[in-house]
Amino acid sequence: MSEHAESMRTIWYETEGDKVCIIDQTQLPHALQIITLETLADACRAITDMQVRGAPLIGITAAFGVYLSLKQNPQCLLSACQQLAATRPTAINLQWALTQIQQELQALDTADQIGSALSLARQLLADDAGACSAIGDNGLQILKALLKQKQQSQPSEQSGENACLNILTHCNAGWLATGGWGTALAPIYKAHQAGLPVHVWVDETRPRNQGASLTAWELARSGVPHTLITDNAGGHLMQHGMVDVCIVGSDRTTRQGDVCNKIGTYLKALAAFDNDVPFYVALPASTIDFAVNDGVREIPIETRSADEVNYVSGLADDGTVKRVRISPPATGVSNYGFDVTPARLVSGLITELGVYPANVEGVAKIAEAMAADQG
Amino acid sequence: MSEHAESMRTIWYETEGDKVCIIDQTQLPHALQIITLETLADACRAITDMQVRGAPLIGITAAFGVYLSLKQNPQCLLSACQQLAATRPTAINLQWALTQIQQELQALDTADQIGSALSLARQLLADDAGACSAIGDNGLQILKALLKQKQQSQPSEQSGENACLNILTHCNAGWLATGGWGTALAPIYKAHQAGLPVHVWVDETRPRNQGASLTAWELARSGVPHTLITDNAGGHLMQHGMVDVCIVGSDRTTRQGDVCNKIGTYLKALAAFDNDVPFYVALPASTIDFAVNDGVREIPIETRSADEVNYVSGLADDGTVKRVRISPPATGVSNYGFDVTPARLVSGLITELGVYPANVEGVAKIAEAMAADQG
Repeated sequence: MSEHAESMRTIWYETEGDKVCIIDQTQLPHALQIITLETLADACRAITDMQVRGAPLIGITAAFGVYLSLKQNPQCLLSACQQLAATRPTAINLQWALTQIQQELQALDTADQIGSALSLARQLLADDAGACSAIGDNGLQILKALLKQKQQSQPSEQSGENACLNILTHCNAGWLATGGWGTALAPIYKAHQAGLPVHVWVDETRPRNQGASLTAWELARSGVPHTLITDNAGGHLMQHGMVDVCIVGSDRTTRQGDVCNKIGTYLKALAAFDNDVPFYVALPASTIDFAVNDGVREIPIETRSADEVNYVSGLADDGTVKRVRISPPATGVSNYGFDVTPARLVSGLITELGVYPANVEGVAKIAEAMAADQG
Repeated sequence: MSEHAESMRTIWYETEGDKVCIIDQTQLPHALQIITLETLADACRAITDMQVRGAPLIGITAAFGVYLSLKQNPQCLLSACQQLAATRPTAINLQWALTQIQQELQALDTADQIGSALSLARQLLADDAGACSAIGDNGLQILKALLKQKQQSQPSEQSGENACLNILTHCNAGWLATGGWGTALAPIYKAHQAGLPVHVWVDETRPRNQGASLTAWELARSGVPHTLITDNAGGHLMQHGMVDVCIVGSDRTTRQGDVCNKIGTYLKALAAFDNDVPFYVALPASTIDFAVNDGVREIPIETRSADEVNYVSGLADDGTVKRVRISPPATGVSNYGFDVTPARLVSGLITELGVYPANVEGVAKIAEAMAADQG
């Protein structure tokens, strides 16, 4: 565990003992519980019960699930992929990862499939962590420039909160959602490691509170100065010069640079625009959906369970995790999971291939870079 | 109680038995508990423990507290006012009401003070309810016009959600916060009573969840169709034409029409502006602070306890009200209670004296109307 403590990994393979380990994210921030996945059923349950979440992480977990399944029964490739695909039917990364793995493994003899399945899973994990690390490096340049600009515009004797770069983020786009580093949090970790004075405003991110439970936990663990706020607070902070830059993640990015991300992202982008605060989106190029242009009109937004709004889970005074109901029984709920931030509100797209403007030309350049990268 | 069920009052005086009754708002929405205030200590506790909250309601409760105190001891006017004033030192309405009552009663013989204290308290209650009712009537005209406009712009066969007027509100500016009717909710109640098809999007309003616990409860009780949403959701709804108008309250309104209201109001105003949704503020003229011009620069914003963000209270599965912690122990919190919405984002100020533009000229006209009303 001591090695893992430094690694910012929420899933990892231990050669010794041939073990796949995950952090059980349903227990965060109240307990750090490591689980060993030993069977296909373990992997399916981890995804279904949201012990792992975040699009890249789900795909990686499924890949390890295929390996665990073949260890149990070398003949079961097809049914394993089907079972894993059914755990989160709407997760596009999951289906994509499984299709790729299935195709690669089917071309091999059964005897070779087990070893290759493990290699593929480890490669997927390493690739995602690598992309996130590159996002971090590219975002770090932006943070460095903003800090320099801030320090030059302020008298040198100024200290306290204003001496550091104040970054607002929404939801959790950290290493808990990816193979490592995270997307929106990657530049922040890189900046912190480089000794830049950063401070993060963490939106709690109702209804599931991923900010309060995951982002705050991640940042605390790495010693990154941060402050938890309600989703309502960011506008006030920006009005008063207390936010220097916003960085969020993206679940889906369109050809014209619109960004579909956790519900509430759009409101923060509006406040940033109204107060001349730069608003960046950090994303792996794989989240770009070249089939979609106008995100607001074209992206269907998933509605989720009313229970997520009606109930809040947390640590009760008796030390157990409980849920409490905050609303009257006669009240109905609407629970949209995401919203779309129009490209006009986005200062730039931070990808593993570089930073690009959020518009048709910028996204076309990302496509060119992707082609060059693969070519 | 059956009479009260219709009255939309959270504090009332019962001649029979000479009783001052309140709804204990700390128990909502999980239980409707009526408490009788019998002593000065009861009144002080009701304010301190937030069994009553909302600026107008606190002032009214304090006025009844003076009456209860004089019944106990006719000599105690001064100390009663001092004790009541200390319950919520920052509540401007409270200090204002107590100063007025003290001045009026000090001019009388001790023997006459008890009866006059009761009359003053009942008058304050009736005046506030009357002002709120007038706000409702004035706002109703806006809702009628918006509904007509919506119906004319849509084909007659269109039905479902779009056939009604969708109104978004933030926090609780209903009868639970006032002497009756409420401010932001008053036009909605008037519309519902007049048979207009209205539907209310209720922001849950973190951190104290006044939307989920109070506004949703009020609307459910009166049979007004409504849906609870997270504070993050309103922008998405407005992008998709699902909100026809926003109405919120105001704790303090400036000479140029800026509005200080519950934290998060500014974010909804930005989304309304970005999507051409009218954004109205309903307020008694008494909330206008003529000493303040630029709300963002001049109004100090109260920061409140970190516990409000770290903990969420609600009904546990065992039927008791419990609190749960949503954040890790190492994480700090910032908790601003209000924000300021610049006048440029406000479509109009709905007051008991009429509807006025949110600018220097509009607020000056409110001042003229106030002078004429008192003259």
